[in-house]
Amino acid sequence: MTDDPIASVSVFYDPRRRGFRSRASVDEVLALIAGRIGPLEIEAVPLAEAAGRVLAVEAVASLPMPPFDRAAMDGYVVRGEETFGADAYTPVVFRVVGRSRPGRRFEGKVGAGEAVEIATGAPLPAGADAVVPVEATCVEGDVVRVSEAIPPGRHVSVRGEDILAGACVLSPGRILRPQDLGVLSALGITAVPVIRRPRVSILVTGDELLPAGSPAREDRIADMNSVMVGALVARDGGLPRVLGPLADDRDALKETLAGAVAASDAVLISGGSSTGPEDHAPDLVVELGELAVHGVALRPASPTGLGFIAGVPVVLLPGNPVSCLCAYDLFAGPILRRLGGRSPEWPYRAIERPLAHKLTSSLGRVDYARVRIVEGRVEPLAISGASILSSTTRADGFVVVPTDLEGYPADATVTVWLYDF
Amino acid sequence: MTDDPIASVSVFYDPRRRGFRSRASVDEVLALIAGRIGPLEIEAVPLAEAAGRVLAVEAVASLPMPPFDRAAMDGYVVRGEETFGADAYTPVVFRVVGRSRPGRRFEGKVGAGEAVEIATGAPLPAGADAVVPVEATCVEGDVVRVSEAIPPGRHVSVRGEDILAGACVLSPGRILRPQDLGVLSALGITAVPVIRRPRVSILVTGDELLPAGSPAREDRIADMNSVMVGALVARDGGLPRVLGPLADDRDALKETLAGAVAASDAVLISGGSSTGPEDHAPDLVVELGELAVHGVALRPASPTGLGFIAGVPVVLLPGNPVSCLCAYDLFAGPILRRLGGRSPEWPYRAIERPLAHKLTSSLGRVDYARVRIVEGRVEPLAISGASILSSTTRADGFVVVPTDLEGYPADATVTVWLYDF
Repeated sequence: MTDDPIASVSVFYDPRRRGFRSRASVDEVLALIAGRIGPLEIEAVPLAEAAGRVLAVEAVASLPMPPFDRAAMDGYVVRGEETFGADAYTPVVFRVVGRSRPGRRFEGKVGAGEAVEIATGAPLPAGADAVVPVEATCVEGDVVRVSEAIPPGRHVSVRGEDILAGACVLSPGRILRPQDLGVLSALGITAVPVIRRPRVSILVTGDELLPAGSPAREDRIADMNSVMVGALVARDGGLPRVLGPLADDRDALKETLAGAVAASDAVLISGGSSTGPEDHAPDLVVELGELAVHGVALRPASPTGLGFIAGVPVVLLPGNPVSCLCAYDLFAGPILRRLGGRSPEWPYRAIERPLAHKLTSSLGRVDYARVRIVEGRVEPLAISGASILSSTTRADGFVVVPTDLEGYPADATVTVWLYDF
Repeated sequence: MTDDPIASVSVFYDPRRRGFRSRASVDEVLALIAGRIGPLEIEAVPLAEAAGRVLAVEAVASLPMPPFDRAAMDGYVVRGEETFGADAYTPVVFRVVGRSRPGRRFEGKVGAGEAVEIATGAPLPAGADAVVPVEATCVEGDVVRVSEAIPPGRHVSVRGEDILAGACVLSPGRILRPQDLGVLSALGITAVPVIRRPRVSILVTGDELLPAGSPAREDRIADMNSVMVGALVARDGGLPRVLGPLADDRDALKETLAGAVAASDAVLISGGSSTGPEDHAPDLVVELGELAVHGVALRPASPTGLGFIAGVPVVLLPGNPVSCLCAYDLFAGPILRRLGGRSPEWPYRAIERPLAHKLTSSLGRVDYARVRIVEGRVEPLAISGASILSSTTRADGFVVVPTDLEGYPADATVTVWLYDF
């Protein structure tokens, strides 16, 4: 590897001839992606829409939380030292001089022998320093009898005890949780600075394709990839826009691709990614920009490509749905997550389990093998063709066999990436 | 427990007096929820919007997939038995009589000694039964030399090999994955029958509350719960609608609550859930319907309530943000997930780790303890007040101490439910 990741893999595409001269390794493509793709710029979103978004800057408290001393229980607020010695047989008597409610403070000052009725969350009146819980009191007219010693500070939530002014509350890169929105609200933030979501155009090509969900007729079948890839893009924080199905018409595709690049942060092209006469996508990327990778040592997605047009990454996904899913998982997903400021790692949950029987692969390529988990053991799905999309719906997840292994023997412990998380 | 779960817990609320007569256990409330709450009805959604939705009926293949025999590789399609004996030194020669492309079948029949150029995914022409990969061929004019024996059926994806007509492809209750949408597309399904998402009204009450994100001023603070609960509802598949902040005005709240019930599948009321003079929510539920639970043996959310108005579940969440989160996680979340046809289990990922130091609780109540994971060990966050919302943002997750334990000793292995998943 050289220092320039793009230089190190651009050799894998030779524009002078059709066909794959040499396939890039998965790791080389991932290094290229890591070297070239960074987060998009910052945008502000309304607080109520910020859950799941990626915080772009440190959130610093401009105010303390709580902003004033307040009651942590319902009861009566007094000078705590005056309750010393109180018990059920010798209660201490206070005169109730008012009431402090949330949002409506008792405006006076609590003097010696005085108490103010207070509700949880209400501001502590001046002069008082402890809350006697209602359970330790007995009220008669304007007199309250306290049957327990309550030291100063007890059941008081003091200004800043939750968050001090100036504290860093949330760090950049944080995927905002529901409760984070509560904290941001308390800090007076209504517009949250987050990383912009990538706009992703999905071009689906193929003369044989009918719109998604169409019953197959004659020699044509429904496009499956637009709905699958659209959902994957949304899962990874992107804003998908599907263009297609598009016919395998070179000039029309070129125009559509140029338009998509102008309007998007990433473009995914499904179909036409290989080396046949109808596979226009690689040539079009060469014409409009640079095709950095074409052909990856990966099964079942070797006809995958990656290029850049005007700085916008363009991923060539195989039209075959299983290969398309594999290429998305390996390359498109990390690109979109990086653009959105997220971890490039898979969002899938990983578990370790023993193989029920051996899993064969080939040296020199990565295998993306769909598996089921049956009685705690991993069963590779025996699949002849890469076109068996139902293998990805029957599977519980997948196992990745690295390039330097010929597979795993039975009983080997493998990592399964679960499709459901 | 009797057979009627509602009868078994309605004793916990005594409408004749204020205050909690006796607290329900967490398990009793969950049994009530399980007995009373079932999935909403079915609606159809466009295929492209179905990811993450809950499939309501079995998806059965009305067509085989693929719908016709097709090429699994680019190459030349022939009668396989005619290639027997071919090798690099003695290639078998075929005459190329046409081309089959995806969507554009070769209309003729392949005879003896004839080959048709074919692209991956293209329909197999009549008469031919095997695809010779392009790598095993050499073309000159209209002649192709085949240098490898290719038995009949090789590199052919046969009709129905992915999915047979009549097969059950996806089961009811399935949370639809991106690849499931691909399969549904292939089956000709454009409108997917799913369980309707629950419409959830969130009433936020409290005289002290300013709109979410407002800087605190005088004795008033920003509402934190609307944005937190709204995000939790959306995460659990619900459609949140926030009403408030609302003043603690009994008549106005009653009208708002009645309107919310009429327009919702569930109502969550944040604040005013306890037994103080400003806590109107319990009484209003009694007036408009039934208050089945008021007070739960749970820390930090004991002033939680659950009722039903016109069959619509109404959850009384404490106004304190940490208690609110706890009560949401324990009760509101399972209600919404059950309404939406999802598993009532937590969506949080569970991990097992040893405690760094002891975690104390009390017999007779469930504790919801926020914890951090530091160097692989679980550190309970030392928290005095339940109002410390930042504890839920500093925490990695929470540990639940069951009602029959006084806590866990140091080094005990506990289950941590991770807030991020």
